Amino acid sequence: MDFSSDTSAAAHPAVITAIEAANEGSAPSYGADHWSRRARELLGEVFETEVAVWLVASGTAANALGLSLLCPSTDAVLCHRDAHIEKDERGAVPFYSGGGQLALVDGDHGSISAETLSARLDQNRREFVHETPVSAVSISNLTEAGTAYTAEQISGLSAIARSADVPLHLDGARFANAVASTGETAAGLSWRAGVDVMSFGGTKNGAVGCEAVILFGDLRERQAELEIRAKRAGLMPPKMRFIAAQMCALLEGGLWLDLARRANGAAVRLAEILQAGGGELVHPVDGNEVFARLPEELVAALTNAGGRFYPWADGSYRFVCAWSTRDEELDAVAAIVGAE
Amino acid sequence: MDFSSDTSAAAHPAVITAIEAANEGSAPSYGADHWSRRARELLGEVFETEVAVWLVASGTAANALGLSLLCPSTDAVLCHRDAHIEKDERGAVPFYSGGGQLALVDGDHGSISAETLSARLDQNRREFVHETPVSAVSISNLTEAGTAYTAEQISGLSAIARSADVPLHLDGARFANAVASTGETAAGLSWRAGVDVMSFGGTKNGAVGCEAVILFGDLRERQAELEIRAKRAGLMPPKMRFIAAQMCALLEGGLWLDLARRANGAAVRLAEILQAGGGELVHPVDGNEVFARLPEELVAALTNAGGRFYPWADGSYRFVCAWSTRDEELDAVAAIVGAE
Amino acid sequence: MDFSSDTSAAAHPAVITAIEAANEGSAPSYGADHWSRRARELLGEVFETEVAVWLVASGTAANALGLSLLCPSTDAVLCHRDAHIEKDERGAVPFYSGGGQLALVDGDHGSISAETLSARLDQNRREFVHETPVSAVSISNLTEAGTAYTAEQISGLSAIARSADVPLHLDGARFANAVASTGETAAGLSWRAGVDVMSFGGTKNGAVGCEAVILFGDLRERQAELEIRAKRAGLMPPKMRFIAAQMCALLEGGLWLDLARRANGAAVRLAEILQAGGGELVHPVDGNEVFARLPEELVAALTNAGGRFYPWADGSYRFVCAWSTRDEELDAVAAIVGAE
Amino acid sequence: MDFSSDTSAAAHPAVITAIEAANEGSAPSYGADHWSRRARELLGEVFETEVAVWLVASGTAANALGLSLLCPSTDAVLCHRDAHIEKDERGAVPFYSGGGQLALVDGDHGSISAETLSARLDQNRREFVHETPVSAVSISNLTEAGTAYTAEQISGLSAIARSADVPLHLDGARFANAVASTGETAAGLSWRAGVDVMSFGGTKNGAVGCEAVILFGDLRERQAELEIRAKRAGLMPPKMRFIAAQMCALLEGGLWLDLARRANGAAVRLAEILQAGGGELVHPVDGNEVFARLPEELVAALTNAGGRFYPWADGSYRFVCAWSTRDEELDAVAAIVGAE
Repeated sequence: MDFSSDTSAAAHPAVITAIEAANEGSAPSYGADHWSRRARELLGEVFETEVAVWLVASGTAANALGLSLLCPSTDAVLCHRDAHIEKDERGAVPFYSGGGQLALVDGDHGSISAETLSARLDQNRREFVHETPVSAVSISNLTEAGTAYTAEQISGLSAIARSADVPLHLDGARFANAVASTGETAAGLSWRAGVDVMSFGGTKNGAVGCEAVILFGDLRERQAELEIRAKRAGLMPPKMRFIAAQMCALLEGGLWLDLARRANGAAVRLAEILQAGGGELVHPVDGNEVFARLPEELVAALTNAGGRFYPWADGSYRFVCAWSTRDEELDAVAAIVGAE
Repeated sequence: MDFSSDTSAAAHPAVITAIEAANEGSAPSYGADHWSRRARELLGEVFETEVAVWLVASGTAANALGLSLLCPSTDAVLCHRDAHIEKDERGAVPFYSGGGQLALVDGDHGSISAETLSARLDQNRREFVHETPVSAVSISNLTEAGTAYTAEQISGLSAIARSADVPLHLDGARFANAVASTGETAAGLSWRAGVDVMSFGGTKNGAVGCEAVILFGDLRERQAELEIRAKRAGLMPPKMRFIAAQMCALLEGGLWLDLARRANGAAVRLAEILQAGGGELVHPVDGNEVFARLPEELVAALTNAGGRFYPWADGSYRFVCAWSTRDEELDAVAAIVGAE
Repeated sequence: MDFSSDTSAAAHPAVITAIEAANEGSAPSYGADHWSRRARELLGEVFETEVAVWLVASGTAANALGLSLLCPSTDAVLCHRDAHIEKDERGAVPFYSGGGQLALVDGDHGSISAETLSARLDQNRREFVHETPVSAVSISNLTEAGTAYTAEQISGLSAIARSADVPLHLDGARFANAVASTGETAAGLSWRAGVDVMSFGGTKNGAVGCEAVILFGDLRERQAELEIRAKRAGLMPPKMRFIAAQMCALLEGGLWLDLARRANGAAVRLAEILQAGGGELVHPVDGNEVFARLPEELVAALTNAGGRFYPWADGSYRFVCAWSTRDEELDAVAAIVGAE
Repeated sequence: MDFSSDTSAAAHPAVITAIEAANEGSAPSYGADHWSRRARELLGEVFETEVAVWLVASGTAANALGLSLLCPSTDAVLCHRDAHIEKDERGAVPFYSGGGQLALVDGDHGSISAETLSARLDQNRREFVHETPVSAVSISNLTEAGTAYTAEQISGLSAIARSADVPLHLDGARFANAVASTGETAAGLSWRAGVDVMSFGGTKNGAVGCEAVILFGDLRERQAELEIRAKRAGLMPPKMRFIAAQMCALLEGGLWLDLARRANGAAVRLAEILQAGGGELVHPVDGNEVFARLPEELVAALTNAGGRFYPWADGSYRFVCAWSTRDEELDAVAAIVGAE
């Protein structure tokens, strides 16, 4: 009953197998290997467009690296107050951008509404030298509340951003779960909806450590700068093949979507069980996370049974399912709920 | 006949096995797992002292992270003109230190002499606000010329640095080769010789991607800052167990030294073969690298036979042996030399 | 009728005279001159304690320089949402601190309440590597709403900050007006109330361009670092005597307080006049600024008569009086109000 | 007999008068005043072209600000080993550029030869991600050895730089002395010779504190970025009119050139006197500085008579003349030399 995080889950066996298979003799360093090439091809297929890509091993690195292309050191990135880049990445955006700041906005269920974005960007005076203007917008999908933006919602936000001449970044650490949840395609939830740069996460979805920074459209011309910034940050380890092989394993045959569906399905069932036990959902369960207020006795019973999950700042509890969440774990929760 | 680099070599099978073994169920994230704990223990045993440690996947990250603890944003790191941090890390030290600079010195065979260090630090005026003072010294062992500093030489350098109140950093990307070559212990070539912070490399010695930033002595108190800086740089991927498992595999049973000895032995034999073919060594072969001037015909013959090695800026050629260099590869070179 | 800003006011003649007087022959550069020494002495007298000081020509420089001593590149400065460092200094704090961020809080009339500070610092988890902790608190006195903190209020805030091990910075661009308004001493409103570092403003109070970064208590030991940071930022122009002479002119004989009283007095009268004309004060008038909601006709009448003042984001208007505001200007406003 | 530096000289009376005259009533802040406008106009006339400009109070700020437009945080500025930006500005370029480095070259008499520049830029591999490439060249005129580049020499250097796609920056802290010395026009020694960005110094030539960052040609389009970077660094004090008035005073009627000629003339005479006393010039005296090896007795005699000048690292002594150097001071040196 470990619902602490999808980051504590094991890697999928296919990923381990791919690492093992990539260990065949010597191979060019720094991304010139054929696994890296294959990963780029597969990403192009999945996203139905040519993409510029750099692979890294952590989501913080992916977000900060991608945003450093968009946000000059004198400007700011607009994001939700609960965004991972604000709450969990210890100033990585200021670091990678050389002083760029985060401009925080509120929003229900972890998402930024069109009204909020519009109102905030209306105040943006890029020609006014004294104030720090917003020069990029970053959204997360899944959001940090476990909800999913639809393609339509993202299109709405990107249109607003575009009219303010501000590009759109997507933190897709749980993008697979959002795709699985919305039924959209990867393209539909990203560049077709106006996303310019994204982090495409693998680590929470069965990888050992693998995230892709993806540049779409005109931004693809900045591949060289992306690599320079990666190199300077120590994000160009020599044996890139072992990161690339993970991405290949996830993308080949659609494993990434299968795993996300599995995690999402577990979360849906878990939500039902917790509600049956008197729990009250704080946010819609669009992906693999459940945020719920729980009766005290239930919390105690779950904890006593070895259940792992985090209390959240708003008084609720967060449960995260992963590709590896087992039916037995859900059955165990159900048994406790039933036994109360 | 791939002598292009030890970074293009495969990982040792034991490392892959360790990654596979670490993939057992869920485990705490961000270094709180037991593989990380075990890696710290093993490093403590190998270095015969308690150490503070952070594991990363690239040597550039290890060097820049470690040096960022020593060099304020207003100061400089003294290093050899050919040091990896200067020639191959694309400004990672300025980036991680927030503007720290590199102060370059010359020296034969990639090493800094006591005289040079002493003369340069005599000019150091830390109280003089206009100039950028040196606030850390960084040496590489193996050096970038493939030579090894002895413990005595390092002790000499550290004494000079200490008397100028400047700490000593060691880039040990090929530290294993230096230990194997000099017959010193890991402790003898590091903290006992006055090293304060080091990068202990695994990647070039059979790992997939694994380097340790190690703090010795009083600097161990700065473990928290080390982790904060790692986090901010995206160098704290959630599933740290897969990096730690690699380090464990290398250290358990002394595999790291066996692999380094193997690579060093191959280099010694390769040097003899090349000399037999008219090659002239540019630097002593203390580790797993051979720098040699070669007859043009030999270069052509090796290249035609599929041999891979790099021309170097001084007109010589660099050959790197790895743990995985096979006798057949050396035999093939010998055959070409004999056949000329 | 220029109420646009105290920054557009002329310098006081005594300041110009002092500049002229300082132009006598050659003098040591970079702050080693005797005007600089005298300025430090006078600051020590005014603040009734030994202080460490660096003089700069802009308030943004003073704030960012002072805060860069308190806020590591990985941490944040807590300040009011309307603080000058947030709204008007274009990311100077992130720049000078190498990536430090601003953590914003709300508060009535531009000030931070003890409750707000306490609640926010209770959330501060400095040992939690993932989040950006607050490592300094910055308040402005006068606040950006033209109100003054009392010594008691500041003592309350500093006690809260201290108990969270967080130092207190004071943006005193209009500190003279706060001293004049509260009747406290300079010491009483600063270090005696627990302020660790402050910007002491002269520019808005009759100088050409002169602000002091002042370090109190233990922080005085960091004078050398302060100067190094100033030097690196180009804030150590050679002929420092001309900045120092301005500070001397303001402090000798208490001119700084006379000028602040004059400006405050003008604001009090202006507030009365505007209220008589149907204006409604938005904030208490503790210093030299008046924020008022005004009848549309009054706005039009003042504007038509050449009056200069800024519309504010909340729908009110800001009027700033300076040492140089003339009775005739106030009479002219009164005449318009009476004539409506 | 104060030959310590032209930075310790007084300001010219016309500059003080201009400051006094600028103190007339209120004026728009942040460079929107008419003195700032007039300064831009005059710079346009002196340089015979439209220019983009920002005025600052220190040469370090001017150089770092200008170079931050040219050098990305991942690249380097090539300069002479003795350049002011390397030896005297405490890492201001790395700070303002966010991590840019300095790539040092040697050269006789403080200048970079075409051969040296060409050879160094031939090694520049901007597409090679591992190395830090040079992305700007900076020369000083006068050089730090007191010598002047001719327009032809600068054209030669700029042609080499341009062919490597690298812009040329000029540190003109003593540009007036170079113009006076070479007989070239300001335009001839700057943009007509291929300079893209320059610092035009006033402080060492009679100002209180006034330097212009000037952008030529296409770079003028980056005026907005220049101002943003100035603002963020605290280099946009409100009462800009007092800096601008200084520049106006220097440029009106060609005062800047008169003052430089005066200083240069004094240096020529001083050089002759010192040579008559057994001194040996280390560098040609092209401007207002004399570097000479001196008999020990002469050094002692000058020092005993209250003469002020600096010993230099190469064993010589530096004497700097200023606009304010008096004939009596030179006579006094002559008397000592004659009396030996």
